[in-house]
Amino acid sequence: MRLQVPVTLRWADLDAYGHVNNVEVLRLLEEARIAAFWRHGPDSAQTAVLESGPDAATHTFVVSTEVEYLLPIGYHRDPVTVELWIGRLGGASIDVCYRIMAPADHRPGAAPSEPVPHVNARTTIVVVDAATGRPRRLGAAEREAWQPYLEPPIEFRRRGGR
Amino acid sequence: MRLQVPVTLRWADLDAYGHVNNVEVLRLLEEARIAAFWRHGPDSAQTAVLESGPDAATHTFVVSTEVEYLLPIGYHRDPVTVELWIGRLGGASIDVCYRIMAPADHRPGAAPSEPVPHVNARTTIVVVDAATGRPRRLGAAEREAWQPYLEPPIEFRRRGGR
Amino acid sequence: MRLQVPVTLRWADLDAYGHVNNVEVLRLLEEARIAAFWRHGPDSAQTAVLESGPDAATHTFVVSTEVEYLLPIGYHRDPVTVELWIGRLGGASIDVCYRIMAPADHRPGAAPSEPVPHVNARTTIVVVDAATGRPRRLGAAEREAWQPYLEPPIEFRRRGGR
Amino acid sequence: MRLQVPVTLRWADLDAYGHVNNVEVLRLLEEARIAAFWRHGPDSAQTAVLESGPDAATHTFVVSTEVEYLLPIGYHRDPVTVELWIGRLGGASIDVCYRIMAPADHRPGAAPSEPVPHVNARTTIVVVDAATGRPRRLGAAEREAWQPYLEPPIEFRRRGGR
Repeated sequence: MRLQVPVTLRWADLDAYGHVNNVEVLRLLEEARIAAFWRHGPDSAQTAVLESGPDAATHTFVVSTEVEYLLPIGYHRDPVTVELWIGRLGGASIDVCYRIMAPADHRPGAAPSEPVPHVNARTTIVVVDAATGRPRRLGAAEREAWQPYLEPPIEFRRRGGR
Repeated sequence: MRLQVPVTLRWADLDAYGHVNNVEVLRLLEEARIAAFWRHGPDSAQTAVLESGPDAATHTFVVSTEVEYLLPIGYHRDPVTVELWIGRLGGASIDVCYRIMAPADHRPGAAPSEPVPHVNARTTIVVVDAATGRPRRLGAAEREAWQPYLEPPIEFRRRGGR
Repeated sequence: MRLQVPVTLRWADLDAYGHVNNVEVLRLLEEARIAAFWRHGPDSAQTAVLESGPDAATHTFVVSTEVEYLLPIGYHRDPVTVELWIGRLGGASIDVCYRIMAPADHRPGAAPSEPVPHVNARTTIVVVDAATGRPRRLGAAEREAWQPYLEPPIEFRRRGGR
Repeated sequence: MRLQVPVTLRWADLDAYGHVNNVEVLRLLEEARIAAFWRHGPDSAQTAVLESGPDAATHTFVVSTEVEYLLPIGYHRDPVTVELWIGRLGGASIDVCYRIMAPADHRPGAAPSEPVPHVNARTTIVVVDAATGRPRRLGAAEREAWQPYLEPPIEFRRRGGR
């Protein structure tokens, strides 16, 4: 199952070229991941929790990221959609996959158009025991909670150096 | 030849965990690339130019980025060093490789320690004709200008999903 | 009339103290101003337009800003509300006034509480003719368009140096 | 005595107008303040300390900021200079004053020109006891440490609404 997370652009995301800066694109992915998988509060029944703040018993750290930019993202008032799923459940790590969908025509006043893929990405996250600072294995309950979001990993069109 | 580019951290690069946020790490790489390869002015004799602003005849676009986080980067008053080189000269694209070196101990008042690798990264950049908006092939003079910075591509310790 | 503009926080707005960084607070104000007064497109019937991008015939420049921080803003999933109005219509300039309203208790899982003022602010904006780069007087139609949003200027509780 | 603090711009400070975004200007001021007045470490003999991180016994909070933008700041490779001094020593608060000096001509390749004032600003900071979270009075030793930096407060050319 892919989650569809709306993320609101900020005008400040644009750089001097008038597009969302390529670094800010990762910020959009981060915000989508937090919106989707951050615990909603101590009494939440939510089980698929990935990030839970500096005070939690489990920390999560990003250990690697890969991003492919297909089209520049222009400024839109309406949120873009970040499709988000789990591409791999490892022993102590998780691959989160993303695809950013946005209208191809972002000129102000343009007729709304069908969203098309603008960005493919993958983030590998390691689960760390906050007390020891060491990676720890994902438990059975955690695996079960993540299972519904497991799909084949994102396929990149090109990869650097190959 | 690897360039050694000092990049000054900002306190604002830290996130609520007290480390340089993983997205801001890409900002450091961007700043290093610009410091190294941005044209210094219209009369500059500099030939290895990668980024030259919205008004230039050639634009460069980041089409893919891969980053591996080895150690969290703490706050340092002294600049960190971004080692930067060309890992691949393609037909119309260039792979820029990076390694961020910083002291392992970043506690305030800690004795200065040897810099160790904190981040490995690679950015693929396509050269675009500003007039047509289409990729164009690198010319012989450009290849010659980049040649001194060509080294084997960065080797990542792990890659997601594999 | 005060506009009530929802602005979504980003986790990245937090600094190492776990609150929205005081500089990012101005980012929230900027985003609210753009959401409220940026032209929605060339065919828009909208008349109260304050910012319209690098290509427009009129540019607007921020010439001064004053911000008073009443309470730190914690992380909320729900948007905060930026109340926004015109505090003064000058010859070639406009004072935009803001009050950020957010729940006082921002602990995750806290029961929703009444929004209280967190920030008071004022931005003075000068209207500039894009062709000449010089300030120009507000026209009668512009004044009429802004009139409904005119209210007494924000009152600051304290002012520096006095 | 005015401190002269060099602050390095980042290309990412530019917005779609090609100037340092007005919000990012405050970031430059924050970085200058931290560079000048952040404690250099637990054994430092430095006495004029204004900011010392989340773990310190004293926290400092920005309670108000006023900024006047005189000229847009273009992109410079060389650091801009932030002049920085104390404009007022209150009971539990301090006014930090700033003037950003930069060359008037920031076109790439322009001949270096004399720095001129681009920004005037003032930040009021309250000193808070970290244990109680309440403002506390500045002690005699603190006042003495700040005294050398005390100068007349910044004079703004214009103030909103007046």
